[in-house]
Amino acid sequence: MSGADDALGVPPYSAAPVEVLRLPAGRSERDQVAVEEPLEIRINGSPVAVTMRTPGDDEELALGFCLSEGLRPTGASPPADLAANTIEVEAPDFDPQRVQRLEAVEVEAPRVEARLEVAAALLADLPKRLRAEQPAFAATGGLHATGLFDRDGRLLCLREDVGRHNAMDKVVGWAFGEGRLPLGGEILCVSGRLSFELVQKAAVAGCPVVVAVGAPSSLAVELAADRGITLCGFARGGRLNVYTETWRVLA
Amino acid sequence: MSGADDALGVPPYSAAPVEVLRLPAGRSERDQVAVEEPLEIRINGSPVAVTMRTPGDDEELALGFCLSEGLRPTGASPPADLAANTIEVEAPDFDPQRVQRLEAVEVEAPRVEARLEVAAALLADLPKRLRAEQPAFAATGGLHATGLFDRDGRLLCLREDVGRHNAMDKVVGWAFGEGRLPLGGEILCVSGRLSFELVQKAAVAGCPVVVAVGAPSSLAVELAADRGITLCGFARGGRLNVYTETWRVLA
Repeated sequence: MSGADDALGVPPYSAAPVEVLRLPAGRSERDQVAVEEPLEIRINGSPVAVTMRTPGDDEELALGFCLSEGLRPTGASPPADLAANTIEVEAPDFDPQRVQRLEAVEVEAPRVEARLEVAAALLADLPKRLRAEQPAFAATGGLHATGLFDRDGRLLCLREDVGRHNAMDKVVGWAFGEGRLPLGGEILCVSGRLSFELVQKAAVAGCPVVVAVGAPSSLAVELAADRGITLCGFARGGRLNVYTETWRVLA
Repeated sequence: MSGADDALGVPPYSAAPVEVLRLPAGRSERDQVAVEEPLEIRINGSPVAVTMRTPGDDEELALGFCLSEGLRPTGASPPADLAANTIEVEAPDFDPQRVQRLEAVEVEAPRVEARLEVAAALLADLPKRLRAEQPAFAATGGLHATGLFDRDGRLLCLREDVGRHNAMDKVVGWAFGEGRLPLGGEILCVSGRLSFELVQKAAVAGCPVVVAVGAPSSLAVELAADRGITLCGFARGGRLNVYTETWRVLA
């Protein structure tokens, strides 16, 4: 299977059957829900975090997570003891003393200087394209998605997860594995709202444009301004709001 | 101000002004975004977590967080050094050795045995009532909410936050402060989807019925079944799905 196919394929184990009582109809039937399971991330053998995630692409998730924490991982794989729901990352620059501070610090990332310019109409259309490619969302209604698009709006990689930060980590981890980091000519699109954490992950990946179907937070806007990222929200119905670095968006 | 009024009032600092370029219209105008800022939670003087939250009700947030971690806090207050965005919790049963495992473990909670029975039509209507009372969402489009309702559908407490787990923690912390835990005759309603983490917080609070406008995850359904909680999703348009302990919902 080619890398591109793999990046767009239906992930395994993303939906599970449940019995549901529908009211007021009173019908009991089988339905599907998004799978959520814990994943323990170990770095150089030390457990550093447990994230609740949708199984699949665990290596990419762990790599993206470590990159977002400012580490430079060299690889990820299932652990030697084959423990379930566990992934092992090698990162020579990891300092175990920092464990307690993981997820608590603002990570250094160079300012994004890419000269990319994109039409507003293309950006406003990305959430719709993302949604059209979300196979597991259609089945469960319970998954966030992050998509990586090229400057012409072609989808390069899509990941779904019960956690929006996980979906972003998986995409960044995929780009890392493909040797595409730092990004420069690509656009990240998320299915929900934009928090500080998501913009931080985009900044670490060097992505110049981030688009969301929902609202950004105050700190997401501040961080995007600080890192030179073009931040767009409420992208729907052919319209969008641009909060920072508006020069990259052509009306 | 009475406790009930306070529980329903507009929280301070929940929205902040930003400049936004609206496209394709091409208008630059002032808009509002949801405020997101870090909060460091210290327990007995030790920093144990940083959560990205919307300021306001920080004591309740910290209390709810600690309760969800299986602790029995005795109080919360700003720290003696008055550090910004920091809250100090007293919890005599806290073991600093457990710090690294915080947020990683399933917490023990007694099975919810409350005999509460509620009409499906009332439950299906709760998300609409919640939304109607979300002052900061209306301004920003960027806030999750959790509401605590009594068995007649009266809103007892509403909290909004950029993080859905924070909104739930604030409500549980409020109920704790009011001496209402464990819950038994109340209903928790959330504005989004239902993850494992949210059901865990409801279980710790002893809440018999949890309703969401969105989808539950697989582990949310499993945990609700295990703890005897009635879990409802997709509550909209007069309809809802009941996944567990269906006997509490009257058609």
